[in-house]
Amino acid sequence: MATRDLVIGFDADDTLWHNENIFEKTHERYRALLAQYHDAATVDRTLFATEMRNLDLYGYGVKGFTLSAIETAIELTAGKIRADEIRHLIALGQEMLAHPVELLDGVVETLSGLARAHRLLVITKGDLRDQERKLAKSGLVGHFERVEILSEKDAATYATVFRRHAIDPARFLMVGNSLKSDILPVLELGGAGAHVPYHLTWAAERVERAPQVEGRFFRLKTLRELPDVVSSLAGQ
Amino acid sequence: MATRDLVIGFDADDTLWHNENIFEKTHERYRALLAQYHDAATVDRTLFATEMRNLDLYGYGVKGFTLSAIETAIELTAGKIRADEIRHLIALGQEMLAHPVELLDGVVETLSGLARAHRLLVITKGDLRDQERKLAKSGLVGHFERVEILSEKDAATYATVFRRHAIDPARFLMVGNSLKSDILPVLELGGAGAHVPYHLTWAAERVERAPQVEGRFFRLKTLRELPDVVSSLAGQ
Repeated sequence: MATRDLVIGFDADDTLWHNENIFEKTHERYRALLAQYHDAATVDRTLFATEMRNLDLYGYGVKGFTLSAIETAIELTAGKIRADEIRHLIALGQEMLAHPVELLDGVVETLSGLARAHRLLVITKGDLRDQERKLAKSGLVGHFERVEILSEKDAATYATVFRRHAIDPARFLMVGNSLKSDILPVLELGGAGAHVPYHLTWAAERVERAPQVEGRFFRLKTLRELPDVVSSLAGQ
Repeated sequence: MATRDLVIGFDADDTLWHNENIFEKTHERYRALLAQYHDAATVDRTLFATEMRNLDLYGYGVKGFTLSAIETAIELTAGKIRADEIRHLIALGQEMLAHPVELLDGVVETLSGLARAHRLLVITKGDLRDQERKLAKSGLVGHFERVEILSEKDAATYATVFRRHAIDPARFLMVGNSLKSDILPVLELGGAGAHVPYHLTWAAERVERAPQVEGRFFRLKTLRELPDVVSSLAGQ
C-alpha cells in the first residue's frame, strides 16, 4: 500500500472534540431536577429506555435527546413536573447546542501532519445542523477532503460512502471512540480500525468484546499515536 | 444543450409529497389547545417568532418545531399549561414524524419519464433521518442518482452541490415549491428554475415578488407540465 493510497476516516464527537461530557453534565442536572421523585439509577434507566424507544423516529442528536428528556420527566413525575421545569429542560438542550467546541488533546497536530500525505474524511452521525456547526467552530474543516454526516453508521452506510468516494476498503482506516459505530462495521467491510476510547461511552454505543482481527485493529490511548499506525499500514 | 446533459434537481417536501398540510393540521390542534388563553393569530405569531429565534440552533424539521411549540405554549400560558398537554404536543410531533408519505399528483409518471433521459437529484433541507425516512417510504429513490439533504438551501450550498457532482449550473434545472429555497438561489448561480406552488407556504419561505429572468424561470401548475419545460430547455 503506497502512503498516498491510504484514506483515513475520522469520527467527530468524542474523537476530535469532547461531547459525551456535555451530555453527562446535563444528565447530572436532570437527575437533580427529578431527585425528589426517583433515585438516579431509575432516572437514568427510564431516560435511556425512552431514548431507545424514540431512536428510530428521532435519530441521534440533542433535539431528540431533549424531547425524550421532557417525555421521561412527565412520565416519572406522573405529570406533576411544572412548566417552568420543562422550560428549564428546553434551555439545557439549547445550551448543549450552543456549547463551545473543545478539541481533544493532539487533534490539531495529528491532523495537520496526516493531511499532508493522505485523504482525510470526517464520517459522523447525528443532527445535520449541529454537526455542521461543530465542524465550523472546530477550525478543522480545512484538513478534510469531505465531511459525511450520516443518520446511522453501519456496514451499509459505510459501504455507500466507500462507493461514493471510490474508496477501496482495504486501503481505508477508520479512527474513532466507538467500537460499535466506528470500528466493527469497517472491519466487517475489510477495512482497518483505530479505536481511541473516550473516558465516557454512551450506553447505546457499548459493546462487550474487542474485535479480534490481526493487523487491522489498533487500540490507541490518544490520537497522538495515530501517525505510527498510519506509517505501519501505509508501509504494507 | 443535448438532452442527456440537462441535470434536474427536485425539492422533496411539498414538491414530491405533501408536507405543509401535515404542519397545518398540527397548527389547528395547537391553536385549539391554547384557545382558552389566546386568539389564533396571537398563537400563530408567537410560535413563528419562537421558531425564527431558534432556527439557527435547531435548523429545519419536526423535532425543532416540536421544541419551539412546547416553549411557546409555556410562554403563552405563563406556565399554566399542564404536563399532560405538553405530553400531547410531544405526541403530535411523533405523529408528524410517523405520518405516511402521500405523493403529489403526477409525480410517479413524471419522474419515470424524465429519469430515462436525465440525471435526477433530490436536493432537500431538513432533518436527516426524517428526510431519509420519507424518501424510503416514497418509493421514489430508484429514480434519483443522488439525494442531497442540506441544512440550508442557498446559493452557497447549491454551489457546493454543483461542484461535488460536476454540474454546470447553465445545464441545471431546479424544480420546487419554494421560490426562496428552490428557485432564487439557482437562478442567481445561472441555472433554471421551475416553480410548482403548493397550496400552502410556510411563512419563512414566502417571498414578495416572482423572479424576472427571461427563459430560465418557469411557473407550473403541476409537475405534469415539467416534461414540456425540460424539452424546451434540452432543445436549446
